[in-house]
Amino acid sequence: MELILKDGKRISAQDNISAIEAVKLISEGLARNTLVIKVNDKFVSFDEKLSGECKLEAFTFADEIGRDAYRHTCSHVLAQAVRTVFPTALFAIGPAISNGFYYDFEFKTPISQEDFVKIEAEMTKIIKANLPIIKTTKTRAEAEKFLRQIKQPYKVELLGDIPEGEDISFYTQGDFTDLCSGPHLNSTGRIKAFKLTSLTGAYWRGNEKNKMLTRIYGTAFDKKSDLEDYLVKLEEAKNRDHNKLGRELGIFMTDENVGKGLPLIMPKGAKMLQILQRFVEDEEERRGYVLTKTPSMTKNNLFITSGHWEHYKDKMFWMGSEDSEDGIMCLRPMTCPFQFTIYKNGLKSYRDLPIRYAETAQEFRKEASGEMHGLIRIRQFTLSDGHIVCTRQQLKDEFAGAVDLIKYLAKCLGLDDSITFRFSRWDPKNSDKYIGTAEDWEKTETAMKNILDDLKIDYTEEWGEAAFYGPKLDVQGTNVYGKEDTLFTVQIDFALAERFDMVYVDENGEKVHPIIVHRSSIGCYERTLAMLIEKYAGAFPLWFAPVQARVMSLTDRTIDNAKAVADKLRYNGFRVEVDTRSEKIGKKIREAQLEKVPYMLIIGDKEAEQGVVAVRYRSEGDLGTMSLDDLIARMSEEVRTKKVN
Amino acid sequence: MELILKDGKRISAQDNISAIEAVKLISEGLARNTLVIKVNDKFVSFDEKLSGECKLEAFTFADEIGRDAYRHTCSHVLAQAVRTVFPTALFAIGPAISNGFYYDFEFKTPISQEDFVKIEAEMTKIIKANLPIIKTTKTRAEAEKFLRQIKQPYKVELLGDIPEGEDISFYTQGDFTDLCSGPHLNSTGRIKAFKLTSLTGAYWRGNEKNKMLTRIYGTAFDKKSDLEDYLVKLEEAKNRDHNKLGRELGIFMTDENVGKGLPLIMPKGAKMLQILQRFVEDEEERRGYVLTKTPSMTKNNLFITSGHWEHYKDKMFWMGSEDSEDGIMCLRPMTCPFQFTIYKNGLKSYRDLPIRYAETAQEFRKEASGEMHGLIRIRQFTLSDGHIVCTRQQLKDEFAGAVDLIKYLAKCLGLDDSITFRFSRWDPKNSDKYIGTAEDWEKTETAMKNILDDLKIDYTEEWGEAAFYGPKLDVQGTNVYGKEDTLFTVQIDFALAERFDMVYVDENGEKVHPIIVHRSSIGCYERTLAMLIEKYAGAFPLWFAPVQARVMSLTDRTIDNAKAVADKLRYNGFRVEVDTRSEKIGKKIREAQLEKVPYMLIIGDKEAEQGVVAVRYRSEGDLGTMSLDDLIARMSEEVRTKKVN
Repeated sequence: MELILKDGKRISAQDNISAIEAVKLISEGLARNTLVIKVNDKFVSFDEKLSGECKLEAFTFADEIGRDAYRHTCSHVLAQAVRTVFPTALFAIGPAISNGFYYDFEFKTPISQEDFVKIEAEMTKIIKANLPIIKTTKTRAEAEKFLRQIKQPYKVELLGDIPEGEDISFYTQGDFTDLCSGPHLNSTGRIKAFKLTSLTGAYWRGNEKNKMLTRIYGTAFDKKSDLEDYLVKLEEAKNRDHNKLGRELGIFMTDENVGKGLPLIMPKGAKMLQILQRFVEDEEERRGYVLTKTPSMTKNNLFITSGHWEHYKDKMFWMGSEDSEDGIMCLRPMTCPFQFTIYKNGLKSYRDLPIRYAETAQEFRKEASGEMHGLIRIRQFTLSDGHIVCTRQQLKDEFAGAVDLIKYLAKCLGLDDSITFRFSRWDPKNSDKYIGTAEDWEKTETAMKNILDDLKIDYTEEWGEAAFYGPKLDVQGTNVYGKEDTLFTVQIDFALAERFDMVYVDENGEKVHPIIVHRSSIGCYERTLAMLIEKYAGAFPLWFAPVQARVMSLTDRTIDNAKAVADKLRYNGFRVEVDTRSEKIGKKIREAQLEKVPYMLIIGDKEAEQGVVAVRYRSEGDLGTMSLDDLIARMSEEVRTKKVN
Repeated sequence: MELILKDGKRISAQDNISAIEAVKLISEGLARNTLVIKVNDKFVSFDEKLSGECKLEAFTFADEIGRDAYRHTCSHVLAQAVRTVFPTALFAIGPAISNGFYYDFEFKTPISQEDFVKIEAEMTKIIKANLPIIKTTKTRAEAEKFLRQIKQPYKVELLGDIPEGEDISFYTQGDFTDLCSGPHLNSTGRIKAFKLTSLTGAYWRGNEKNKMLTRIYGTAFDKKSDLEDYLVKLEEAKNRDHNKLGRELGIFMTDENVGKGLPLIMPKGAKMLQILQRFVEDEEERRGYVLTKTPSMTKNNLFITSGHWEHYKDKMFWMGSEDSEDGIMCLRPMTCPFQFTIYKNGLKSYRDLPIRYAETAQEFRKEASGEMHGLIRIRQFTLSDGHIVCTRQQLKDEFAGAVDLIKYLAKCLGLDDSITFRFSRWDPKNSDKYIGTAEDWEKTETAMKNILDDLKIDYTEEWGEAAFYGPKLDVQGTNVYGKEDTLFTVQIDFALAERFDMVYVDENGEKVHPIIVHRSSIGCYERTLAMLIEKYAGAFPLWFAPVQARVMSLTDRTIDNAKAVADKLRYNGFRVEVDTRSEKIGKKIREAQLEKVPYMLIIGDKEAEQGVVAVRYRSEGDLGTMSLDDLIARMSEEVRTKKVN
């Protein structure tokens, strides 16, 4: 027989050697680290006998497939342990995820993280027992009989999801058998290091109409030291988590009487958003945008025309009915049709184009309650929304301009290193989710691809992520836990101008439809704020820090001097607090440091006498004394250049 | 008999003289001008015979009572004329109003302003006929029989509104008789000058569920020249009307697909609102306010606690139902409970007070469709909303501070001369519209009155205009037609802190409820913008003019110089347009003047060569040439001082 390796290399081998022996022929080391083996594109057990021509792939913990199998097995170990500790628990699903795994259970009585000790002890036993993991298949009838016999109703429901004709496979370790498509490790003993990390509620099938189950999260690594490193990083991530830190720093809060996905931005956060909004609006003005201010509420007529009512209604808030006096009133999920309506006020000529409309817009989307998160996914948000109306000839330059603005803003925020570009295309298999024909989409996506390539943008492609009216360039960011979200977007739209009967008079006096670029610049302000909290762990760059300096009196004798210094700084446009409490200076500095105030200015008798300030910088400590003018020059330069580190 | 005059003077007179003869005893001139006469506090006809002791009052066109009777009679003349021209018309109500009168009709086929010629001709006939106007009374049964006989169903309904025991009076002129409580002139010939001015739809009884009637507006004066003056002023007012001018200047628009009361603010208007918002937020920050940014949407829980759900629900937009997943979600009509919720985040001490929260808040009120008007009364608006949480001891200073801020802002906008102060009190006869006991209201209103008097604020009192939670100082403005609206407000609230369980720890370690001052600073931005459009007829002061200067090339040779001048002005923070069209300079200037651009800068060969600009100022014309630096200094000073004329 012959083995064909990943790189195309061929190795001759004895017939009927086992899969793991075949891997040994590549390298003993690889075989030692192999977690799962694929032969001719199918996962096989280690002792599968090979013959003929075999494409052979071995996966270790370094591979995503290997890592997922490792952690998926650990989730089965978790389930087996839970069965021992809580014999009445019901089992739902238990996949590997990036950074770990989870398993959803229904417990008769609620459990808490304190129960993790018992569960982990049981898991350790199962791992030490080094139980072989055996795959079997059953007919549908056998499978159902078995699952009913072990009284696992969620598994019976899952069985129903397996399409006719597909293998129905089970994995068994010791006396524990789980319906599962695999792949898995060949024995429980392969797991070297694991840890249960957290516990949350999760709806069965993610649907809030279903029962709330208990999700146990864990992670697993093939080295103890890697697990430890990961847990330290996780702890750090938790401390950076905007949903925790943002509350601790007094940036935002939520309240059950207001509701989910409706954060209340507190004074420090509101100050930052004000700074960002002014910065963005000024930069947009500099780049030839004009402002609009349009209502968040409208009759649904506008969204019937745009197609949102047909394609997006489920994510919209609306009220009333067609036969009520005002008809159906919607809260807008985006600004497009409002700016289109303004465009239509007065006939435009080709000489008027491009017109770049921008608005700091309040928008509403009815996110499902399970999807909402901190400031990242909310129901009312503020979008730097805008639409460029242009000719076909202007499209490329306008698209490039929109991307350039995004890059510039990301740089000023210090987010430029952590964003990636995604070309979000339609899903031809779900064409009824979109407006326009396959030909329209082909044409528009080709045009967009050409522009992206011409602009030398380094992007990935993702099918099915387009807007219903056109493809998008999405600028993606990840939160502290590695979850990806769209921060900014630029979209090309050949469709809506026609729907809204938007025209301009071209050079030949003909009325033609313009092209529309939909774009956000700084994106959703709340989401961007969340990213900034996580990136800077609250230690914000001076230019958008809500408090830039705190002046502290060393003794009660210098209270007036401290206030005078603060006043002069404020007069120069800085955001300054004063701490004139009769506390030890060490305590005052510690508190300011904890609140991540950039500049701490200490005024003692000597400083007061000499007319200078003793300056501490958040990240550098003592900078010695300097004149107030020098300090103002230093701070002004830092703000002017939008220094981010 | 004896006559007692307004000033208390007594005049002896013959018994049984008529009322008009009695007036003659005061003055022949007065008698000539008398329109209605009151004897012992009751209106009487001119030939009423007097005896005994009579308090006598005669009213001329100079008195509101006289003017109203004059115009009310004119509305009857209108109705009589309509009956002749459109015999099938039905009659509703026809009162005098400030500046004129109206009458509501139901026409079988719609009429237009072109029909005014015919109606006015008929009115002139009726006046020339000098028909005596005779008052009669009927029993309820007679009255109903009569009104049914003349087939006037609206009048039958009005008859039903007259309380039992009150006189049911009719006024007859020629063959026209109308149900009316009077008073009226003694004959139609007294009317010297009138004019029908406009035509609108108006719901019967102002209720949009009822039939839409046709309202004909008119006015009348006792001198032809006064009528002419008024019509000229009205024409000027129409030209200043923000609802017309604001659209012409490209400040805002509306669209039937968006809906009523939901204006779309166009780029020029949005720029002005941005300037005003930044100015207000900066001034509030300078005065110790902290910003919040809270959602426009909330579960109704918040408003149940505040009392809005009980007292204000009809004016709120809301959706969902109590048993839906999210419950009832409201769009907020004000920000109070959101800022209260932020206050409650963390226990406050007396040392933390006062806390002054401000927000540029999007708010929604379900104004009835007949009440909405331009930018003045709309369904979604932007309020400079804010709440000061303070101790009882701080209340007076905080109240004074809020009033001072309003006065400062009004001055910067040039509105200080045109505002008046109104102490808006509760209505004890409608106590269920309010929260709290009569004693609470007595206490709060007394406290507020003392503060107002201490602050020497010159105010009027209006009962029934309080908020449901407390009395208000409303700062009132009037539009071009004289209609009054509240622009800014400061309110004292002793009630809601308790409802929201808001406390602070006082000097003795006790938890006590703070006092809350509700206030708007610049008020509703849209309404204030409307006032500014009307005040300046679009010729806005430099500091908030959307375009501050337009640079014009005199010839194509100076296009680049004109652009360079514009760039330098922009670099210095000015909002500048460039007109480099190959048009005659006279045309360019005329257009800029029409658009009310403050500075028109002309660059010809000579200016380009000498590095100067030829400057025209909107209101002063040619200012000669000056260096660009001098111009920048002049404009900067004008902006810095917020010059308003």
